[in-house]
Amino acid sequence: MQFVSYTRLGRPGFGAKVGEGIIDLTERLAPGATSLKQAIAAGLLPVAREYISGRSAEFTDADVALLPVIPDPGKILCVGLNYESHRAETKRPDAKYPTIFTRFADSQIAHRQAILKPRVSDHLDFEAELAVVIGRGGRYISQETALDHIVGYACYNDATVRDWQRHTFQFTPGKNFPSTGAFGPQLVTPDEVGDYRSLRISGRLNGEVMQDATLADLIFPIATLISYCSSFTPLQSGDVILTGTPGGVGDRRDPPLFMKPGDVFEVDIPGVGLLINPIATES
Amino acid sequence: MQFVSYTRLGRPGFGAKVGEGIIDLTERLAPGATSLKQAIAAGLLPVAREYISGRSAEFTDADVALLPVIPDPGKILCVGLNYESHRAETKRPDAKYPTIFTRFADSQIAHRQAILKPRVSDHLDFEAELAVVIGRGGRYISQETALDHIVGYACYNDATVRDWQRHTFQFTPGKNFPSTGAFGPQLVTPDEVGDYRSLRISGRLNGEVMQDATLADLIFPIATLISYCSSFTPLQSGDVILTGTPGGVGDRRDPPLFMKPGDVFEVDIPGVGLLINPIATES
Repeated sequence: MQFVSYTRLGRPGFGAKVGEGIIDLTERLAPGATSLKQAIAAGLLPVAREYISGRSAEFTDADVALLPVIPDPGKILCVGLNYESHRAETKRPDAKYPTIFTRFADSQIAHRQAILKPRVSDHLDFEAELAVVIGRGGRYISQETALDHIVGYACYNDATVRDWQRHTFQFTPGKNFPSTGAFGPQLVTPDEVGDYRSLRISGRLNGEVMQDATLADLIFPIATLISYCSSFTPLQSGDVILTGTPGGVGDRRDPPLFMKPGDVFEVDIPGVGLLINPIATES
Repeated sequence: MQFVSYTRLGRPGFGAKVGEGIIDLTERLAPGATSLKQAIAAGLLPVAREYISGRSAEFTDADVALLPVIPDPGKILCVGLNYESHRAETKRPDAKYPTIFTRFADSQIAHRQAILKPRVSDHLDFEAELAVVIGRGGRYISQETALDHIVGYACYNDATVRDWQRHTFQFTPGKNFPSTGAFGPQLVTPDEVGDYRSLRISGRLNGEVMQDATLADLIFPIATLISYCSSFTPLQSGDVILTGTPGGVGDRRDPPLFMKPGDVFEVDIPGVGLLINPIATES
């Protein structure tokens, strides 16, 4: 199944993608379940499967304003340097543990919304990533059971303001500018995706391939990421883990290549989604 | 004025400290204003001043279970290496910008609650800090007006699991274990505090002074921290900035000294508060 979050007729909600359209699920699975995160937390996605069975689309993508897949995750845990091709280009040493930094939820945007180049920097870079959304939360989750905690996958552009990322050795400033975390278009459940290691991920700037890898290339596989993160913080329904970006980022090119207003960046993960965002300037 | 957050008779709320007790303000300043963060966001603290005028305490500290000063901040922005005495002991180079990392709200505890040593580490260290709470939010706040955005100050123990902090060069894992961010006992408004640079901060382990400095020692003053953080992320009412810890942390002692179950750590900032937390083991 595939789920989207959106605003329709001025009200936020969520629904299931079917064929060419959407079936609205806002408050239809349970009273008060007005967001995808709430539906996940309440274990309602199997109910959604029954609900949509035999129904047809009520409206199309054009009738809604998409929101980030999960607009309001409690935690966004980002993994750095998790493809060998990217680790090598950054010249950072091998690590025994995943490199974890964070992004605030209010830095997120949806499919087709503009990634904003802030007025204080011209070093806006792309990072195509596979996002994992947590279904059932937990603490000290074992690697063996970790994949059972995934409710779905989506595309993410962890766009980064490189000079601010390097103000010090902590990444926080460069990873949290408003309208830099693109998350969409939809959440795809694991039964549709199958083995995530067979997924291919590409990042394209104005149609030209900048990043290309398979998810089998992850240095720390997703089960390890979930287990590790849940050791130091309890994971909850709707939490997001960004699994890292492949080599080819603009900043490490010679000469460096940054995104500028008018550009378009695409994160393409066949079987999961095609996330498209134009670039604009902060007003 | 001084404000506290608490649970009373099983319900979360907040109130003002007066003399020997507390006047409850939960839903008394405006309908729906059930938390200190909501009251701050709605600009209700001046109303609180009128409300308590002439009234006497309704109950005492013993009648409530204190919560962290702000139990649910949208953002906790932590500043590393912001006292020369601490920067020097860590042997890190001078920096042109503040070092910013983050803490999740669910890692927080209140005054007198136990800081928990996780079962995966024995390297639990203390960090006495002054916390700044944002009143009116904003983006691109100027240094000149930054202090106007502060609604109050409080004591914080940014307790850190040192080995997990150093798994990689990003601090996230060591700074987010449950029950490691002690925040209390109360919020003190700027009119009571006066010039924060005249504050003295001490950290005591089992009564012995481990850390001692004045807030005039901050490398990046609070106006700079607010201005800098608001450049990369919008600040909102109730957000918390932890201003850094002085030299003397346990990890940099010879031999290193970590907190262990049965210990008590105090963060003492006369004029702001005395935050006391026992140490216990995660069950």
